Amino acid sequence: MEKNKQVLLASRPNGWVQTSDFKIIESQIPEPDEGEFVVKNNWLSLDPYMRGRMVDGKSYAKPVEIGEVMAGGTVGKVIKSKNPEFTEGQYVVGRLGWQSFSKSNGEGVSKIDPTLVPIQNYLGVCGMPGATAWIGLLEICQPKPGETVLVSAATGAVGSVVAQLAKISGCRVVGIAGGPDKCNYAKEEIGYDACVDYKANKLLENLKLACPDGVDCSFENVGGEIMDTVMHVLNPFSRIALCGLISGYNETEPYGMKMIRSILINRIKMQGFIVTDRSDLYQKALRNLVHWVSIGKIKYRETITEGIENAPSAFIGMLKGKNLGKQLVKIQ
Amino acid sequence: MEKNKQVLLASRPNGWVQTSDFKIIESQIPEPDEGEFVVKNNWLSLDPYMRGRMVDGKSYAKPVEIGEVMAGGTVGKVIKSKNPEFTEGQYVVGRLGWQSFSKSNGEGVSKIDPTLVPIQNYLGVCGMPGATAWIGLLEICQPKPGETVLVSAATGAVGSVVAQLAKISGCRVVGIAGGPDKCNYAKEEIGYDACVDYKANKLLENLKLACPDGVDCSFENVGGEIMDTVMHVLNPFSRIALCGLISGYNETEPYGMKMIRSILINRIKMQGFIVTDRSDLYQKALRNLVHWVSIGKIKYRETITEGIENAPSAFIGMLKGKNLGKQLVKIQ
Repeated sequence: MEKNKQVLLASRPNGWVQTSDFKIIESQIPEPDEGEFVVKNNWLSLDPYMRGRMVDGKSYAKPVEIGEVMAGGTVGKVIKSKNPEFTEGQYVVGRLGWQSFSKSNGEGVSKIDPTLVPIQNYLGVCGMPGATAWIGLLEICQPKPGETVLVSAATGAVGSVVAQLAKISGCRVVGIAGGPDKCNYAKEEIGYDACVDYKANKLLENLKLACPDGVDCSFENVGGEIMDTVMHVLNPFSRIALCGLISGYNETEPYGMKMIRSILINRIKMQGFIVTDRSDLYQKALRNLVHWVSIGKIKYRETITEGIENAPSAFIGMLKGKNLGKQLVKIQ
Repeated sequence: MEKNKQVLLASRPNGWVQTSDFKIIESQIPEPDEGEFVVKNNWLSLDPYMRGRMVDGKSYAKPVEIGEVMAGGTVGKVIKSKNPEFTEGQYVVGRLGWQSFSKSNGEGVSKIDPTLVPIQNYLGVCGMPGATAWIGLLEICQPKPGETVLVSAATGAVGSVVAQLAKISGCRVVGIAGGPDKCNYAKEEIGYDACVDYKANKLLENLKLACPDGVDCSFENVGGEIMDTVMHVLNPFSRIALCGLISGYNETEPYGMKMIRSILINRIKMQGFIVTDRSDLYQKALRNLVHWVSIGKIKYRETITEGIENAPSAFIGMLKGKNLGKQLVKIQ
């Protein structure tokens, strides 16, 4: 009989996440109670924010408890329902966790149209990462045509959408990525005007060359030394959308940011944001992104790992920057 | 015959400013050419930003050159004029430098009404520091009644006005100042609800006690370790008006800010600003402040040093926090 494969949090990581921080079990496929439905999950999204859910520190969301199913976004099909809003055969996106079957009362679950774009897009370019890019760039940075937009983690699920929205907005777009392969992909496929390899030497010199007019909008996914270096090329009245600090997620000591002075002397606005705070804009962003993707104006790439049991190693690979584009797990 | 006493920049400081970084000379009182006028300066303002003008690094204003008169705001009386806009006997405020007489073509000079408030107020509570407080608090922080506003350099020329505007806005106002005397002054005269002495131990614990509901607006004048500690008590969606980083002005190595993560997880907006960028609001702010001061609703205190030749030592004292309220030099 078919079982529900689940990935649980086994221990809280200290420093780099290990596969031993997870435990894979098989359990009964859940049965819906009144008002509930059961989803067979086809796709799981892997995202940097999940690293924050594994630890117990203060953050914007409560942590996953030891022994709980890891939190994560999924796309799947309703297979059994006692909820009139969600009928059998319907495709849905929701935060249903690292598991092959989930039970839900519908909270935080949305129906999706599988005919517009491939269903897994609702986890990436037309989902939370896409909306993050849209809100961070268009709402917080508010770039004007002709301005220079700099994107760290340039080829990631968020960064690659930021870049394409910035091009649509008439900007010069410069990426920061790790290694020549990612930089070539950034320029040749995503459409960056230039891309700086932070693993090569001379990040500051190369940023200055790539941004001859300085930087007006910085979409920051990385933090740490890279962000500190970017501070040197920011223009007066520039804006920083602080979306993530992935370089620090596996560090036990926080990096000390030296260039705070740049925020003062350049009158910079730096704003941290979380996409789920902007539910007022979320649906608008998604409709917009589905449109751009369906007409081929926004392109995307996926790194697909097969099998929910391989989610832990895929997640660790993503934290180390091994994926290109959106990291997905194909569950079934 | 009367001479023009002038304070020149003699050398660029490295670390703490020394009196030997200045040179005092006497020169002829200038004569106005067509379109110009001569001002007998009564008051000189001493402000932390002047430390930045003494060095050659990138900043928002060009540095004073070696051998030039130190830059600074003054209030004085027109004594000779070949400019129809500025007639003899008129009082003016302007950036006419560390000297007893100045020649001007009127650029950046404004007429003031000596009957509304004492003329030196146009250098402090009704001048640039007051407008800085007004714009940083009301435009950037936008506090709402019931919110908690935290002010570092609480008793300074800017901080003391921030506090009183925040009280008028219906906020709980907490200061950070150095030593029990300044803290008592903050509470008993300026009207802070609480004041934390950063020179005592346990800054974080004391901030938590003074801000039981956390902090919604942080008016940051100091930077460094104090700012890093404040990051721990900031609420979700709080705002930081980054006005100054006085703690670092005499350091040769910048402080490394560890709590950048707080900006992300609390979705904080941090914005650097310079009052002169907001000329659209400057006059509105000053009218507002003159009103509050003239009816006694905003109080102020001055530390007055007599004689332009004592400006260097007074300036160094101010950088070390020896003044209470606005630091002025009475020239004549």
